[in-house]
Amino acid sequence: MEKTSPRPTRGLASDNNAGVHPEILEAIARANPGHEVAYGDDAYTRSAIKKFEEHFGPDIAVFFTFNGTGANVLSLQALTRSFQSVLCSDYAHIYTDECGAPEKHTGCKLIPLPHQDGKITLASVRHAYHGIGDEHHSQPRVISITQCTEMGTVYQSEEIQALARFAHDRGMFLHLDGARIANAAVSLGQTLRQATRDLGVDVLSFGGTKNGILGGEAVVFFQPELSHDFLYLRKQSMQLASKMRFIAAQFEALLTKDLWRRGAEHANRMARVLEKEISRIPGVKVVWNVEANGVFAQIPRHSIEKIKKDYFFYVWIEEESIVRWMCSFDTTEDDIRKFAEVVAEAVRG
Amino acid sequence: MEKTSPRPTRGLASDNNAGVHPEILEAIARANPGHEVAYGDDAYTRSAIKKFEEHFGPDIAVFFTFNGTGANVLSLQALTRSFQSVLCSDYAHIYTDECGAPEKHTGCKLIPLPHQDGKITLASVRHAYHGIGDEHHSQPRVISITQCTEMGTVYQSEEIQALARFAHDRGMFLHLDGARIANAAVSLGQTLRQATRDLGVDVLSFGGTKNGILGGEAVVFFQPELSHDFLYLRKQSMQLASKMRFIAAQFEALLTKDLWRRGAEHANRMARVLEKEISRIPGVKVVWNVEANGVFAQIPRHSIEKIKKDYFFYVWIEEESIVRWMCSFDTTEDDIRKFAEVVAEAVRG
Amino acid sequence: MEKTSPRPTRGLASDNNAGVHPEILEAIARANPGHEVAYGDDAYTRSAIKKFEEHFGPDIAVFFTFNGTGANVLSLQALTRSFQSVLCSDYAHIYTDECGAPEKHTGCKLIPLPHQDGKITLASVRHAYHGIGDEHHSQPRVISITQCTEMGTVYQSEEIQALARFAHDRGMFLHLDGARIANAAVSLGQTLRQATRDLGVDVLSFGGTKNGILGGEAVVFFQPELSHDFLYLRKQSMQLASKMRFIAAQFEALLTKDLWRRGAEHANRMARVLEKEISRIPGVKVVWNVEANGVFAQIPRHSIEKIKKDYFFYVWIEEESIVRWMCSFDTTEDDIRKFAEVVAEAVRG
Amino acid sequence: MEKTSPRPTRGLASDNNAGVHPEILEAIARANPGHEVAYGDDAYTRSAIKKFEEHFGPDIAVFFTFNGTGANVLSLQALTRSFQSVLCSDYAHIYTDECGAPEKHTGCKLIPLPHQDGKITLASVRHAYHGIGDEHHSQPRVISITQCTEMGTVYQSEEIQALARFAHDRGMFLHLDGARIANAAVSLGQTLRQATRDLGVDVLSFGGTKNGILGGEAVVFFQPELSHDFLYLRKQSMQLASKMRFIAAQFEALLTKDLWRRGAEHANRMARVLEKEISRIPGVKVVWNVEANGVFAQIPRHSIEKIKKDYFFYVWIEEESIVRWMCSFDTTEDDIRKFAEVVAEAVRG
Repeated sequence: MEKTSPRPTRGLASDNNAGVHPEILEAIARANPGHEVAYGDDAYTRSAIKKFEEHFGPDIAVFFTFNGTGANVLSLQALTRSFQSVLCSDYAHIYTDECGAPEKHTGCKLIPLPHQDGKITLASVRHAYHGIGDEHHSQPRVISITQCTEMGTVYQSEEIQALARFAHDRGMFLHLDGARIANAAVSLGQTLRQATRDLGVDVLSFGGTKNGILGGEAVVFFQPELSHDFLYLRKQSMQLASKMRFIAAQFEALLTKDLWRRGAEHANRMARVLEKEISRIPGVKVVWNVEANGVFAQIPRHSIEKIKKDYFFYVWIEEESIVRWMCSFDTTEDDIRKFAEVVAEAVRG
Repeated sequence: MEKTSPRPTRGLASDNNAGVHPEILEAIARANPGHEVAYGDDAYTRSAIKKFEEHFGPDIAVFFTFNGTGANVLSLQALTRSFQSVLCSDYAHIYTDECGAPEKHTGCKLIPLPHQDGKITLASVRHAYHGIGDEHHSQPRVISITQCTEMGTVYQSEEIQALARFAHDRGMFLHLDGARIANAAVSLGQTLRQATRDLGVDVLSFGGTKNGILGGEAVVFFQPELSHDFLYLRKQSMQLASKMRFIAAQFEALLTKDLWRRGAEHANRMARVLEKEISRIPGVKVVWNVEANGVFAQIPRHSIEKIKKDYFFYVWIEEESIVRWMCSFDTTEDDIRKFAEVVAEAVRG
Repeated sequence: MEKTSPRPTRGLASDNNAGVHPEILEAIARANPGHEVAYGDDAYTRSAIKKFEEHFGPDIAVFFTFNGTGANVLSLQALTRSFQSVLCSDYAHIYTDECGAPEKHTGCKLIPLPHQDGKITLASVRHAYHGIGDEHHSQPRVISITQCTEMGTVYQSEEIQALARFAHDRGMFLHLDGARIANAAVSLGQTLRQATRDLGVDVLSFGGTKNGILGGEAVVFFQPELSHDFLYLRKQSMQLASKMRFIAAQFEALLTKDLWRRGAEHANRMARVLEKEISRIPGVKVVWNVEANGVFAQIPRHSIEKIKKDYFFYVWIEEESIVRWMCSFDTTEDDIRKFAEVVAEAVRG
Repeated sequence: MEKTSPRPTRGLASDNNAGVHPEILEAIARANPGHEVAYGDDAYTRSAIKKFEEHFGPDIAVFFTFNGTGANVLSLQALTRSFQSVLCSDYAHIYTDECGAPEKHTGCKLIPLPHQDGKITLASVRHAYHGIGDEHHSQPRVISITQCTEMGTVYQSEEIQALARFAHDRGMFLHLDGARIANAAVSLGQTLRQATRDLGVDVLSFGGTKNGILGGEAVVFFQPELSHDFLYLRKQSMQLASKMRFIAAQFEALLTKDLWRRGAEHANRMARVLEKEISRIPGVKVVWNVEANGVFAQIPRHSIEKIKKDYFFYVWIEEESIVRWMCSFDTTEDDIRKFAEVVAEAVRG
């Protein structure tokens, strides 16, 4: 195969544009010899689940899926019936970036709430909680938050606790889309358990793809009885891997010797470097606090296409000319410096 | 991670219990360096699709999914609306082994037809084709066949052609679940194109997982216009991989230097060896022609649990005490001899 | 409006081709004056539900829907999750005549069982009950039977009891599609309760449209806790009538002064007259016992189109030239004599 | 049946709390004699459809459903595939009052737009129209508006034309939820055709229940080819009436001798009387223009429960203490005077 792309080796488009961490690739190779029963009834899967128990404590239920959309949709499906609704940010990944997958698969309504720096507030949840007991109205069942948020910010512990309390007081559940939960935990100086279970999260989409694995996601139930039907839901939702050992082995590696933390710490640190570098450029304004591995900046509209000649990235809010740049486990300071130079040059015009 | 399984290194439970072919693992590693745009807009994916065009000819549309259920369901979804039906064998994988995924996702009815040696016949399709134009009746839209069949047999070319003709004469489509299409093509002495497109197949689920890849499946449309909405369907159906390059790289390797053929030829040959070995055992009767990589045998009921002490495998038809044994790219003659000894011993009682 | 149809005033095509019983029309008119709160929170609805309690006993939950398909699908939806399956006759109305509505709305698989004189047997249910606990397999959850059956026969009490026992012993439910439950109860000499609840039926689709009402159906839960979410399911499934009082008033009238019984008794008696009349015609053979209001006959193929010049009716099994003729609350002996003459004439050739 | 409700004969809770217009009841009775083929293949249905053609012109396709939710959902289902989206007001009936039926049945996303006096603006539609061609994003397919709006206002012709043009320029469709289209046409001094088809509406939910019929709704396609699959969709969506003649007869009557217009004119006129009466009450403020048959008023919070002792009605916007009062074909000036007295008394405190 010939690669003709003229782009730099590494960009800042997304943490899922990075490849696979070497320790993960080795784990896959190590899991290869011999035959294993398919669909998860194998030693690698059992071992990986034990790793989750080491991190999150006992009495959990863990299931692997192929991707984040699968993990999110299946989490919601396990918690809902079709006449119920899910409250989330109007910028939530499940609301804007999954092509309607949650609605299609659960039959539920997703209720978009205004966000503040990427976070939904207790006030907005309270406002959306109405029509209870009215058969004409989808019944609120789940609050779903993304951590880190789609604006690169991080919910503080007491913010999550308040949402969990609101939910639990009303027979609702708190789901956390943790595509970047590692970056959040690192940002908050917490363990994975402190950042999720201990705050009242009921179900976690635990992401690995954005933190150096090849592919796969885990759904973690902190009340195992909620996962009673999950094996069937996963199979029917086309998220059951036959050669499960290779997803399991990746998560085992990610949760071993703090690889999850090392990758996230590095990415977060690189984001702070990036923030510093581009903040110096006149006309570039960082618009949300850099609390994890993403930097969101308002840049002159004319510069966007110019930068894109060298680097692919996403415009986050078109109307306001806000763009997103993400750091990953393999971003280098040198990558950032070169990128900042291109930005500076483009902005100058 | 400790592996405590006392089982032999390789068994005959399923070709998806095998690991990953070394050439596939190498291809994954080769695709790793640097960043690539996610979701399929990358050089590896483009290159893999070219490989498909080399094998199947131009004017096709190729999409990668995570697994066979995903490929099958998405194929059907692209071809149907919810009030239509899919005709298939009552032993078809889509009918019996996907936990109702096709019905859930397409809304369609699957009409089970009696099979003959694993194959549906034109007569049974013709019998099921009725109620046309009657709004009370799901309207037949797709004929779906599995090649190799769930009984290890292989449709002959003229059988597939006849089904294709029947379908096309009525505005219907022919879908082929090709989880083991490589084994079938080898069995028939055909190229991949001769075994599918040239016979009138409209959409193909092209399997790799049972032929040595780590994970992934491809949906191949031989009339690209049928795939008009496929990108959206795939995303909404949670089958869009972010690090797509790693699925693409596997398929590129599988379609390079005849790896698909080498693996299938070997597996098929091993099945013939297995057939020969177990046919010698009194009380063991091979029930369907061994035309590819599976051997289905009726064995004394008492022997099943005994064999299972050493080897995991699936009982295929409980009432008739028929079991399934599958060979894969890595099965050795030695594996088979040891297995046959265990069977012989168990059958003796 | 001009009616130009040259057909006889009343035919034998279906009991739903009849109009509305005068007592029902009067009940509608009586319910008309003044305003009533919509959607079922009105005195007429409460009063009709009391009537159901008089007939079926206390501790039930009753909900009105628009039609039989709605009642059936909603019954199944209340009892299932999408990865489960429903066991029913391969001639069941839910399987063959609802255009896949149950599959589309519940996501479940319907498993067709062979029937014997229209009835599913315990043996066939037992055979279909497998794959329990296997995530690849839709999990059996409901047995659904039709009473009277689609072949005009009537399940005996002990047959229903056996199916109910089988279901309940396995955590499953028994649903009864009672589009013609009145005809069955009359045939068996039972009350409505004896014919349903007392036999172990869990949920009943109680039909009125085929017994003289204008339109509407009732879902009756004999374990009210199963209906916990039903108000939401009904609304979301588009089966909630705004002017509910008019459906309620019809059911109140149907359950008053034995109107349900009078209509069904008459229709059943007319079917016996019809049976007698056509049995005399050489070449006409009644193929299933006439146990309720339908007569199924095998007639010379050439006669079908001739009879259809005068009377619309349905060919039930094309291959065997079996047709269906139904009597209704308003069928007269004179209607039958005239019809039998036309049949005799047509058969003669 | 005993009616013990102490409420006044007629209230102002909703136009669907009214009963059936005498001319409609007579039409039902007239359609009763004799048998008719079920499911719409009858002379009454053909005749009613001709009436629609008289009003809306030739080359239309008309289908009856049971209720408004059915008509709306089926309209959307005919126009969409599951990965598409529907743009509508965040107060649209389809968005807030159908318990998620559109999402469940179509699989589509409904995108809520801010409304201005109940209407969505071209600007808000334009803002929501983005992500085109991006597989991660539900693709906008339908603009759905309600006429009269949920705030009792009426879109002007040029507003509808502008939305239609926007839609058609982008391969989208304009759906009109016409639960109260009669009131709107009367308000605008238009024929039914002028108020819909001539403005570019593609599919119309034509309501009757709120204008004096017993039950039923019509879906009218102004491009018949869009209805190609509608018979199947209607059946599968449980909206096919067996005794269709009785829905058809109602619509025939509604469209005969201007009954639709007489009912709507009266209701609209009564709303103006109501507006006048309550505007005199200090502390009561009419919040949106009274353009049809609804009056929306902000009233002192303390008065709500007091009024409710005598009259049931809906609080429309809880936070702002805005309530809704609707007039119907049978509202009398006397009803209004008595109601206004109760309001005045309650407001006084």
